[in-house]
Amino acid sequence: MCEANAYLKDGTEEVLFMESVDIIEPHDEGLKLVDIYGKQKFIRACIKDMNLLNHRIVLEKG
Amino acid sequence: MCEANAYLKDGTEEVLFMESVDIIEPHDEGLKLVDIYGKQKFIRACIKDMNLLNHRIVLEKG
Repeated sequence: MCEANAYLKDGTEEVLFMESVDIIEPHDEGLKLVDIYGKQKFIRACIKDMNLLNHRIVLEKG
Repeated sequence: MCEANAYLKDGTEEVLFMESVDIIEPHDEGLKLVDIYGKQKFIRACIKDMNLLNHRIVLEKG
């Protein structure tokens, strides 16, 4: 499967925010993330970078 | 493989910008995209949304 884990950049650390993310969409002033099971999470952040082969997306508070 | 195709939103259309994208990183005022072969492309845009199971990333001129 090609889902990825989303990490939130907090200073120099990257903290796991959500596993198995499928969809990321804009929502209000942030993002809506949906995992492969349909669970949704919202965060006031933007996408900083991603590495799909490593299944890794980094978010940054906006 | 878990790469994705990157499309650029142009009005109501989404035009294929780069295939088989692995990495997306911030670069200057835009993004650097790297495909699975190591080829790089630069664009003054941001990530609008993505659907990883569909291997689809949509960029928007920012």
